Amino acid sequence: MRAAIFNGPRDVTVGERPDPVITEPTDAIVRVTLACVCGSDLWYFRGVSPHEPGAIGHEFIGVVEEVGSAVTTLADDDFVIAPFLYSDGTCELCLAGWPAHCLNGGGYGNATGGGQGERVRVPHADGTLVKVSGTGHPDAVLRSLLALSDVMCTGYHAAVSAGVGEGSVVAVVGDGAVGLSAVLAAKRLGAARIIALSRNPARQAVAREFGATDIVAERGDAAVEAVPAMTGGLGVEAALECVGTGESMTTAFKIARSGGMVGAVGVPHDSVVPIETVIFRNVGLRGGVSPARKYIPELLPDVLSGAINPGRVFDFETDLDHIADAYAAMDERRAIKSLVRMVARA
Amino acid sequence: MRAAIFNGPRDVTVGERPDPVITEPTDAIVRVTLACVCGSDLWYFRGVSPHEPGAIGHEFIGVVEEVGSAVTTLADDDFVIAPFLYSDGTCELCLAGWPAHCLNGGGYGNATGGGQGERVRVPHADGTLVKVSGTGHPDAVLRSLLALSDVMCTGYHAAVSAGVGEGSVVAVVGDGAVGLSAVLAAKRLGAARIIALSRNPARQAVAREFGATDIVAERGDAAVEAVPAMTGGLGVEAALECVGTGESMTTAFKIARSGGMVGAVGVPHDSVVPIETVIFRNVGLRGGVSPARKYIPELLPDVLSGAINPGRVFDFETDLDHIADAYAAMDERRAIKSLVRMVARA
Repeated sequence: MRAAIFNGPRDVTVGERPDPVITEPTDAIVRVTLACVCGSDLWYFRGVSPHEPGAIGHEFIGVVEEVGSAVTTLADDDFVIAPFLYSDGTCELCLAGWPAHCLNGGGYGNATGGGQGERVRVPHADGTLVKVSGTGHPDAVLRSLLALSDVMCTGYHAAVSAGVGEGSVVAVVGDGAVGLSAVLAAKRLGAARIIALSRNPARQAVAREFGATDIVAERGDAAVEAVPAMTGGLGVEAALECVGTGESMTTAFKIARSGGMVGAVGVPHDSVVPIETVIFRNVGLRGGVSPARKYIPELLPDVLSGAINPGRVFDFETDLDHIADAYAAMDERRAIKSLVRMVARA
Repeated sequence: MRAAIFNGPRDVTVGERPDPVITEPTDAIVRVTLACVCGSDLWYFRGVSPHEPGAIGHEFIGVVEEVGSAVTTLADDDFVIAPFLYSDGTCELCLAGWPAHCLNGGGYGNATGGGQGERVRVPHADGTLVKVSGTGHPDAVLRSLLALSDVMCTGYHAAVSAGVGEGSVVAVVGDGAVGLSAVLAAKRLGAARIIALSRNPARQAVAREFGATDIVAERGDAAVEAVPAMTGGLGVEAALECVGTGESMTTAFKIARSGGMVGAVGVPHDSVVPIETVIFRNVGLRGGVSPARKYIPELLPDVLSGAINPGRVFDFETDLDHIADAYAAMDERRAIKSLVRMVARA
């Protein structure tokens, strides 16, 4: 089959890889219809985080082509969303609501095929894949279903981790696809006020569309002054950290009000948690790798009904043959997030 | 009046200080009956944290002697618990459940008199003081009422912050008075398993009495191996950090299971939060200065009924004249926590 191949930093090409086959009775083979490039793929692309050469990509939706003998809830031709990690759904940590830490789970790679390829072997298919009912979904809905595989659930995790609920006052640090998804998540969870930190007009527009009530174009110290000034001097109940840098973490803690929460989902690079703020201002910290498999069934009805449109984060589109463009557009910040349309050959 | 006087590190004496008087209509004057020495007082005593010379102490119970003209819920002779910080009970942060961050609140000191003195002026008396009904309470109950002014509520905050509830699997790092209180708090909140880290036989005994189901005498790396081994390899859902050192914080994060929480109430000294654990294992962090004023009414009935006996942490007792002994006993680790009995002269 054809698939994206990670050769090393700044070198993603398209080539032939072996077709995945069922190796465990709990596996399914999924033919990918839509895939995309994750912010974490960019870290690999830029050489900041290590990545094994070979298969790449972990966000995809598609159609089941084959199931192992032990798979009971899925059948050929089922249309499915694949969370960005696989999980059995039955271990103690899955049952506790932490499928991303499944004791038998893992990520996609050379052993399974990557999401940026024509086909993927999905281990623990019953526990992992979420079946989507209905047919003939409009393209906008398909794009939003793809967003559920990772980015929307990651933004949602930031908001849930920070305890966002009815009437919450929220700020979102980061205007990438995750930050924008966090805005949408906060809106869905009932936040009364959502302050988006963004200097980019196109991203500000998406933030507004997703529910941001206020935009703060300042960064760093200026943002740290602006947000409390907008909230009666107190700061926000929930600060959603969706970048992962030292500056963004510092900003999130500073703009959180005493007793508030930081919901952090950015992959950390030089982030330092200000323990004095945790202790002397009671600002808590929670977040991390999203339990997407838990959130997808919760968010799916809203996507199918059109109540939320997380797929709006995709503002660049190409096909597998042009996967390098998908990376370049994000690397050069021309795109918020790149969608890759797959047309698998038999 | 007579009161403890902080002259500088390792120099606490007893002397005369001006009798506090009503200065604001919302004040009350409380005659202290029982006071005690806090772990944070020890930091001052040891010169690790700065403290203004003069009045000291912030944990006390006593009797109202006089109220300002605007005080409506208290009267002379009311028996009251004073939380370790005063708060108005009406500001936005008080109403949000964070009285320790009251916009008009503060701590006791030279302007009010300290808790380790015969009398204290309590600002915002209506918002601050918690009236205790009944008379003739046994000494064991009085000691437990004193524990509600700080230490028990601080341990409780560790457990609440970590989300301890029915059936939780908990570990408590620290066997000081706060750590032991955290054990009792976890028990009261319904924890099924409470692992206390302690090497001291006397403290182990109190931990057992308070509800610890397991004792781990190891520290550092050995504790980090022992606790997961006792919990199916996973670690605990809630790790309560009740020390404040770098090692205790590290231990707490390492023994927490993926998706778990660290509830931290130790005053931080060189603590570093392992952000990778927060992000890649979804271990959250919450805690800090306890909202004691919120917890006291919740815990008071259990103290009055004898259901909980947090006063068991006091294993050394003296009077105001011997306040130096109260500090020395804790400094030399001869005492878990020192109680100071006050007999105010007219």
